[in-house]
Amino acid sequence: MDYVDRIVKVARNNSYILSSLNTAVKNKVLLSMAKAIRENKSFIMRENKKDISKAEHKKMKKSFIDRLALSDKRIEEMARCLEDIANLTDPVGEVISGWRRPNGLFINKVRVPLGVILIIYEARPNVTSDCVGLCFKSGNVCILRGGSSSIDSNLAIAKVLKKAASKEGLGFEPFFVVEHMDYSVIDKLLKKKDYIDLVIPRGGEKLIRSVTEKSLIPVIKHYKGVCHIFVDEYADIQKAVKICVNAKVQRPSVCNAVETIIVHKRIARKFLLLLKKEFDRYTVKIKGDKETRKILPSVSLAKTTDWYTEYLDLIVSIRIVSDIEEAIQHINYYGSHHTESIITENINHATKFVNEVDSACCFVNISTRFSDGNQFGLGAEIGISTDKLHARGPMGLKDLTTYKYIVYGNGQIRE
Amino acid sequence: MDYVDRIVKVARNNSYILSSLNTAVKNKVLLSMAKAIRENKSFIMRENKKDISKAEHKKMKKSFIDRLALSDKRIEEMARCLEDIANLTDPVGEVISGWRRPNGLFINKVRVPLGVILIIYEARPNVTSDCVGLCFKSGNVCILRGGSSSIDSNLAIAKVLKKAASKEGLGFEPFFVVEHMDYSVIDKLLKKKDYIDLVIPRGGEKLIRSVTEKSLIPVIKHYKGVCHIFVDEYADIQKAVKICVNAKVQRPSVCNAVETIIVHKRIARKFLLLLKKEFDRYTVKIKGDKETRKILPSVSLAKTTDWYTEYLDLIVSIRIVSDIEEAIQHINYYGSHHTESIITENINHATKFVNEVDSACCFVNISTRFSDGNQFGLGAEIGISTDKLHARGPMGLKDLTTYKYIVYGNGQIRE
Repeated sequence: MDYVDRIVKVARNNSYILSSLNTAVKNKVLLSMAKAIRENKSFIMRENKKDISKAEHKKMKKSFIDRLALSDKRIEEMARCLEDIANLTDPVGEVISGWRRPNGLFINKVRVPLGVILIIYEARPNVTSDCVGLCFKSGNVCILRGGSSSIDSNLAIAKVLKKAASKEGLGFEPFFVVEHMDYSVIDKLLKKKDYIDLVIPRGGEKLIRSVTEKSLIPVIKHYKGVCHIFVDEYADIQKAVKICVNAKVQRPSVCNAVETIIVHKRIARKFLLLLKKEFDRYTVKIKGDKETRKILPSVSLAKTTDWYTEYLDLIVSIRIVSDIEEAIQHINYYGSHHTESIITENINHATKFVNEVDSACCFVNISTRFSDGNQFGLGAEIGISTDKLHARGPMGLKDLTTYKYIVYGNGQIRE
Repeated sequence: MDYVDRIVKVARNNSYILSSLNTAVKNKVLLSMAKAIRENKSFIMRENKKDISKAEHKKMKKSFIDRLALSDKRIEEMARCLEDIANLTDPVGEVISGWRRPNGLFINKVRVPLGVILIIYEARPNVTSDCVGLCFKSGNVCILRGGSSSIDSNLAIAKVLKKAASKEGLGFEPFFVVEHMDYSVIDKLLKKKDYIDLVIPRGGEKLIRSVTEKSLIPVIKHYKGVCHIFVDEYADIQKAVKICVNAKVQRPSVCNAVETIIVHKRIARKFLLLLKKEFDRYTVKIKGDKETRKILPSVSLAKTTDWYTEYLDLIVSIRIVSDIEEAIQHINYYGSHHTESIITENINHATKFVNEVDSACCFVNISTRFSDGNQFGLGAEIGISTDKLHARGPMGLKDLTTYKYIVYGNGQIRE
């Protein structure tokens, strides 16, 4: 049998066993996995060194090697994450709702695992153990296809985790790491809609678009995060400056950093002069529209493409608008429907904004950087969705489940 | 601008207006639509006659013309369905969950409309008004592409409904009926992923497969309903016979009718002799496996293809198994993951069955015919899903929504 056929068939079969494993057993395995990660640190580091050498040999960028390299701290974080997942509530078996019908039927809508989840990701090897933990706890078998540059690290981590599971008496493989790195394997996997229930691509926009176009399996993803802050005419200016600086500067390389700041014309001069001073301290480059440049003549002119751009860098675009409607229209038209925040002391404007902005996360008076599973209190996050079907926004354990209707009766038939 | 481009752009725009319409206004419009359907009965009937003439001219089957033809009763049902929808709880605005974080963030997960829904369906013209009602109440603009054989009826119904909406002061088109019947229009619509949020195909398996393969937009569907009843060794035989007869005979042409009956060998002889007698009364044709034919020598032999077949007719396949495991394996392997029922008085077998069968609806001691939104008490049904993402099983109003996270703070930033 072909490599892909074999993996998906075993994965589907194992998903039926995993789906009925009880929580205590799953938690024991997760804690044992965490322990094994710590105990096998030197083995994992040794294998990781191979990946690093290859990357250095290929003259990869320093930032790339940084993401790839495991350290004592990163390995400890991997172990800690598995322990955190063990502590999260098991979503499987939750009765989402239930009721009795007039004819006596007792209907239960019960949360169950999705089954088999394919995760396609790039360099960071810690994603391997995080995804194994989240999928295992939610009762799903995962098939992991990490970047080829981290294959030795990923296989090492997988080996350690599988051994720990087997030591706890788990008689089946609870996850799979794709070992063959040629792209044809991904293409084949993406057609296996009868064996794989969900695909989650994590990484750059190009990777995600390619997966989405090829897949016959449902995909949950976000292409990019073009997040906005709208500084309303009724904004508290100190709050607005503090929030905009945090949203741009605290970690500019992530999807929930702000990319465009929209400012009401009545507050623009006072606010922008203060903001510019702060942004200069952090060497943030500003691109402004014509009105912005009347106030800040030194900044470069924003082009139409800027409104669509996720800079992932210390760059921000700024636009001045005449009213809140114009701001909402800009966000719905140019944005990526990820996360937007309004800064205002006016309750009606706040309500209008959160109701009319068509994004996964609509915030009032906080930094866009809070768009995150951990920050929301959902626990470790499998990703953020800008899709509207199934899961939207930060995705926790529950988003890796579906439900079934279990209905009990006593001989009822339809009349 | 091209026909499809125009429709989808206006639809997306109108979806922003519709999404914030309040419930009282929506209900008023729905009641006014119901009234208009009754008042314009003769107009609708006249237009429907045109479709019927065309179908007769084309020598379509009687059953086809039956589905197409509107009667006083069917028009009254259309009006009543709109009134029923007006009476259902509005799903939009429900706070699904909400909590406060240690740093003071107040998180609300709030139900909102999906946006724009494309529904592709076949002959029945009443689907037009039912879908308009369900989508409108859930705050979604729908684009309806009905069968070409019912185009005059559909346009007449749409005209009546739009006029009623406009009379109630609705200043925008709340839905669209595709008037151009060439298939290239469907193909184009299925690529408009930035304007359409969900596609629901309703009809035969061929239509649904074609839509699913072409669509870049998420699709919710069921291909077919190969529903099973497992008559366990601990079944109450009287109950089992009554339920199997109801599930096969009461309405054999629908997706929740039973297609395969699986019988435990220990109860097989006694049960099958009784069942055969009942099925003979209703002229149900039986196809049995080898073991079945030892008990019922007159029935024909079931082939492997029979286990995959949705007969939609007075035909049933029967298999005898050695234990419950074999029954569950058969269902998960050959079934369509739609609806299955176990007949047993043994609580452990019931529990095992509902836990291990991988279907949208897992029943105990009732007819598979209960797999239906109305029977579940969800109100009118937009369809039944055998998908695992977003919605599974009978879909009500809530399944036509997504959610957004609305988060209130007071100047919080991330440290």
